[in-house]
Amino acid sequence: MSAEPLVPETRVLAVASHVVYGYVGNKMATLVMQSLGCDVSPLNTVHFSNHAGYRQLKGTRATADEITALYEGLCQSHLTDFDVMLSGYTPSAAAVEAVGAIGRDLQRKTEKKPGSFFWVLDPVMGDLGRLYVNDDVVPAYKKTIRHADLILPNQFEAEVLSGIKITSLSTLAEAITAIHATYNVPHVIITSVQLSKLPESPSVAAAPSPNNLTVIGSTTKSDGSPRLFRVDVPAIDCFFSGTGDMFAALTVARLREAVFAAGPELRTTKSWVSPDDVKPADLPLAQSTVKVLASMHSVLEKTMEARNAELLATAGQVDEQLGAEKQKQEHLRHTKAAEVRLVRNVQYLRNPVVEFKVQEWRTEDLPAQLR
Amino acid sequence: MSAEPLVPETRVLAVASHVVYGYVGNKMATLVMQSLGCDVSPLNTVHFSNHAGYRQLKGTRATADEITALYEGLCQSHLTDFDVMLSGYTPSAAAVEAVGAIGRDLQRKTEKKPGSFFWVLDPVMGDLGRLYVNDDVVPAYKKTIRHADLILPNQFEAEVLSGIKITSLSTLAEAITAIHATYNVPHVIITSVQLSKLPESPSVAAAPSPNNLTVIGSTTKSDGSPRLFRVDVPAIDCFFSGTGDMFAALTVARLREAVFAAGPELRTTKSWVSPDDVKPADLPLAQSTVKVLASMHSVLEKTMEARNAELLATAGQVDEQLGAEKQKQEHLRHTKAAEVRLVRNVQYLRNPVVEFKVQEWRTEDLPAQLR
Repeated sequence: MSAEPLVPETRVLAVASHVVYGYVGNKMATLVMQSLGCDVSPLNTVHFSNHAGYRQLKGTRATADEITALYEGLCQSHLTDFDVMLSGYTPSAAAVEAVGAIGRDLQRKTEKKPGSFFWVLDPVMGDLGRLYVNDDVVPAYKKTIRHADLILPNQFEAEVLSGIKITSLSTLAEAITAIHATYNVPHVIITSVQLSKLPESPSVAAAPSPNNLTVIGSTTKSDGSPRLFRVDVPAIDCFFSGTGDMFAALTVARLREAVFAAGPELRTTKSWVSPDDVKPADLPLAQSTVKVLASMHSVLEKTMEARNAELLATAGQVDEQLGAEKQKQEHLRHTKAAEVRLVRNVQYLRNPVVEFKVQEWRTEDLPAQLR
Repeated sequence: MSAEPLVPETRVLAVASHVVYGYVGNKMATLVMQSLGCDVSPLNTVHFSNHAGYRQLKGTRATADEITALYEGLCQSHLTDFDVMLSGYTPSAAAVEAVGAIGRDLQRKTEKKPGSFFWVLDPVMGDLGRLYVNDDVVPAYKKTIRHADLILPNQFEAEVLSGIKITSLSTLAEAITAIHATYNVPHVIITSVQLSKLPESPSVAAAPSPNNLTVIGSTTKSDGSPRLFRVDVPAIDCFFSGTGDMFAALTVARLREAVFAAGPELRTTKSWVSPDDVKPADLPLAQSTVKVLASMHSVLEKTMEARNAELLATAGQVDEQLGAEKQKQEHLRHTKAAEVRLVRNVQYLRNPVVEFKVQEWRTEDLPAQLR
């Protein structure tokens, strides 16, 4: 039996939502990281029957005190030997602060060993121009992300955190620069940039095609300035829940792998910030992102196939319903069909089969109308 | 890339405990079944920091109402297309009844398609002569297991359910016969039989060696009589938490695989009960048990190696403590070191590398003193 292509041994504290059915939050992230060989400790912030995409769910939310108590339980039995914390959906401002306190405590426990603990924070607040958390969660995140090593906002969350409306490629770069500067976060990836919705110029090679999805990332240099890179991937024309969680979980595993591959010096450097002479496209964060997106692309392609087959097989099931009820049943059927097919496609996580390209991204290379 | 050796596609509702750190309950069962290709929906009955073997933990228990609400959440969005339910640790009598109601509802939903739904119930009540649940959980289980297709009691739980004290091989057979008859459960496996603690006879070939662990199982014939088989495996001299959950989860995947391998007739038969002419050792349950134990043996051997290495590496860490505190710290250190090493050993789940033998088990073949 050949050895599995696993990443270096990594113990992860994963703080996010749990759903009984389907793949979002910790349900997604845990399996993704386990499949790559990580030992995952999932601390669940909510216990729901299913994800919110169904527009109805049942279950309970953990209070800030319950989250804190679980962590105290780990501390009292010396079970906090984590290499990485991945924090995602957290249901209230108080809970965000409780998770922040956990992150800082883990940092304190490891402060004498730079690089031995790394915190990836997904500031889950909203999407597509809309907050889906209470307003007071925003300032709680703004306080918390100052302590994170890598944050993974989507385009809307990047706007909320930077205060900059992203309407062009240059405002996107400004937003990342502002996030680095304001929060002192060394690594940022903006997932799901819909550049196709930004003003376009058909004549420019670097202009995104409407069928592409662009991911922009950056690791600061020692002077705090960004090192920007971009990866374009073909978009798949369907909304899948949990893709942000898949991205985050794959990034935990692949970034640590890339940092280990860069040699012992980087992984004993605080926050794994590469020396200034490392070019944007050569950053571990950039190398990791390419692999992450390759895995995601294959899994989502397989999901799309399975979704279409399921929709075909279940077509007509709700024909007898009328009006609003029929619409609701159709929505449920489509949402279920679009659950990410992870379990039987983990080989694409371990061995990405497509190759995307990462490039340094310099706004000054673009014509004025695209900046 | 070669295809993964996965079992037939299987959707499992897994009702058991969740721990942040370590591998017991659903934390163990989910990963085990996912590794073999099952789509698992974990409904968590408790949310604890760690397992009880540490002798201290923090967290919360789900109430019966919360368990029921999660299931209602699944029902309202049509997310109950489960092939198997695996139910394990449930924290109260009311919660056992709530889980029982879920099992019966899933049975009702599938009653027109015999064999399309199968319920594996692990009646978690205690071990080694001691109940670790409230007394009222026992009658709740006695009511519930009448509806299950396969139950997996350990030796103590088999005594509680049968009312027969297991002091010999023949009382063991009596207990299984009584469980079949009293509860009308078609499949039973008694895990962790410590036959070495039963009266021995050194001269009999079939007598267990003290270094063996014996698993006894049975599928009824059409007249309700048992078809008994046994598998002996070398014991590993260490207590690991979660092995019962690993056994149950592997059994879900391997039993369904064996039933599918037996042809389309068996899997459309209620409770997958093989025709009377199938010999005990040829039962899907027997074939599955052999594979399950082979996987477990390898994972636990790897765990033992890792445990010993960890104990060596951390030796002396608690030397400065005194008396009771030192004892406590040593217990925590040993318990953590014995966490099952699952993530990086899943290849042994997929491709068992050792082979154990299953044999028909006939008490009448044994000399009187062993019966």
